[in-house]
Amino acid sequence: MTLHPPALDPATLSPRTDSGYPEPYRSRVLPREKRQLGRALGLVQLGVNLTTLPPGKESSMRHWHTHEEEFVYVIEGEVVLRTDAGEQLLRAGCCAGFPAGSGDGHQLVNRSEQPAVYLEVGSSDEADEAFYADPDVDLHFSPAVRGGGFTRRDGTPY
Amino acid sequence: MTLHPPALDPATLSPRTDSGYPEPYRSRVLPREKRQLGRALGLVQLGVNLTTLPPGKESSMRHWHTHEEEFVYVIEGEVVLRTDAGEQLLRAGCCAGFPAGSGDGHQLVNRSEQPAVYLEVGSSDEADEAFYADPDVDLHFSPAVRGGGFTRRDGTPY
Repeated sequence: MTLHPPALDPATLSPRTDSGYPEPYRSRVLPREKRQLGRALGLVQLGVNLTTLPPGKESSMRHWHTHEEEFVYVIEGEVVLRTDAGEQLLRAGCCAGFPAGSGDGHQLVNRSEQPAVYLEVGSSDEADEAFYADPDVDLHFSPAVRGGGFTRRDGTPY
Repeated sequence: MTLHPPALDPATLSPRTDSGYPEPYRSRVLPREKRQLGRALGLVQLGVNLTTLPPGKESSMRHWHTHEEEFVYVIEGEVVLRTDAGEQLLRAGCCAGFPAGSGDGHQLVNRSEQPAVYLEVGSSDEADEAFYADPDVDLHFSPAVRGGGFTRRDGTPY
């Protein structure tokens, strides 16, 4: 049976397969598939994606948000969560939450041999800025960049 | 392995098993278990519950919110979603989203023989009010009631 709004079968959505990251970070997350469930359902306050992360790939670079909260729930497979608390293995049925402004960067890494599928939810705030925690990642996300975008840490463009 | 914040194994949380509803509505939703994942992870903008709904029970009375968005994703089992679009069966892996102010009430009903488990996510807004869609449900939720609470449609207390 085909579902219609306000219901949705995620399998019927074409995934987003791009990334706003410049290289060399883009290649560390792609090919990653994001099915934008929230957008498809007309939500504007909640961002909800069903994401498939292939073996060896990273969900994002390790980062934290100034204004937006995030929540992830693992549906299939497993991912390693990297934060200041160390590395933790999240299996299907486990979750994690990231309050805004914590200063503790987070990232999921798929170190398994299987694709990992997780639901990621975020609140939405136009003032949001993202800081990147790993010293080898020269990234910053700012709403001051036209349309919201990525620069180097010092604000210079890629 | 025990997880620690910002990670969480929902199975380690004691569920909330009460309801703010007056009778006869309370008995239509209980015994229902809500594991408050968002609260346990320190989230304040996102409300996230992992809810187990026994056979024959309703997630809530059919309602819509003035300010808050909602999203549900079925993890195990199946539920019937009731909205103006009619009844739709949501199996594990299916989802639904409810924009604020739609005027289209929604409710999940477990008409199966198995418990249904779903993730429910909501944005948070102190001004939020909830209207109830079914004529036989004499309920209203208003933040004007002390602490936020339920009255009859005409505002009189239970």
